[in-house]
Amino acid sequence: MEYTDHTTRPFRASTHFSSSSTLLSYSSALPPSLPRTAVQSPCAACRVLRRRCTDRCMLAPYFPSSEPLNFIIAHRVFGASNIIKFLQELPESKRADAARSMIYEANMRIRDPVYGCAGAISHLQNQVNGLKAELAMTQAELLIMQSQQQQQTHSASVWEDINLSSDWK
Amino acid sequence: MEYTDHTTRPFRASTHFSSSSTLLSYSSALPPSLPRTAVQSPCAACRVLRRRCTDRCMLAPYFPSSEPLNFIIAHRVFGASNIIKFLQELPESKRADAARSMIYEANMRIRDPVYGCAGAISHLQNQVNGLKAELAMTQAELLIMQSQQQQQTHSASVWEDINLSSDWK
Repeated sequence: MEYTDHTTRPFRASTHFSSSSTLLSYSSALPPSLPRTAVQSPCAACRVLRRRCTDRCMLAPYFPSSEPLNFIIAHRVFGASNIIKFLQELPESKRADAARSMIYEANMRIRDPVYGCAGAISHLQNQVNGLKAELAMTQAELLIMQSQQQQQTHSASVWEDINLSSDWK
Repeated sequence: MEYTDHTTRPFRASTHFSSSSTLLSYSSALPPSLPRTAVQSPCAACRVLRRRCTDRCMLAPYFPSSEPLNFIIAHRVFGASNIIKFLQELPESKRADAARSMIYEANMRIRDPVYGCAGAISHLQNQVNGLKAELAMTQAELLIMQSQQQQQTHSASVWEDINLSSDWK
């Protein structure tokens, strides 16, 4: 079988449903004795992958049918098998965040095919550096002004002392 | 053929070297009449993919043999076919930056499997917001101090005027 470009062509059931495939393994992690019920509306992932979506589909909670683009984009960037692998390697409590971050990263790569998320990070790092420099400058100005004010207050009190002492004479 | 998990198992020549595969197509973009010379030391990508590396290998400039981990990590996150597809879709002048950004993103995903680059972006955005707030506060303090200083200068000049006028009497 050729190494299919999954972005432009959907998975073909004949090539992607063998029992040992990564794509199947995520739903076969449960004991085979427990029956799986096919759902009426397949999740976005199963729809793209042309799979039968069951009530225990691992991808369904993170790629609901109501947001079909999320899976299409994440699949285009990471590939379905990598998405499944990453999610499987995490505890269930972390999977929603991981799916969201993959969707986010994939969107960034599609928007900026050269720099992707790295471009946003570089831009933000520049912004942080700029803000740090501006803050340091403003803090220095403030310090100078504070010391000038302290000097003025000191001079004023000296003048006051002088005036007071001259009044006593 | 099964859908191989390319992360843990290397590509098998029998399944990944068909003439129409994405993995081959990047090197077959050149006219077939031009001969390809195999290089003595294959690039990091060809080594991982167990391919014959030629002097016109598209991946060699971005994944040199001296940095084998870069390709292993990028391949683990994006998959070889996606890396090739992304690079092929870009003009040559942009490919080095794109490869670097993919290596960077892949490293981030391996380091932080839940949030990846998105985690770094979120952290930097918080830092930017914190710095903006601190800068705004410092600028406000500076403005208050400047207005206080202006008032003091004004008061001093008023006193000076009063003293001068009393001297004239």
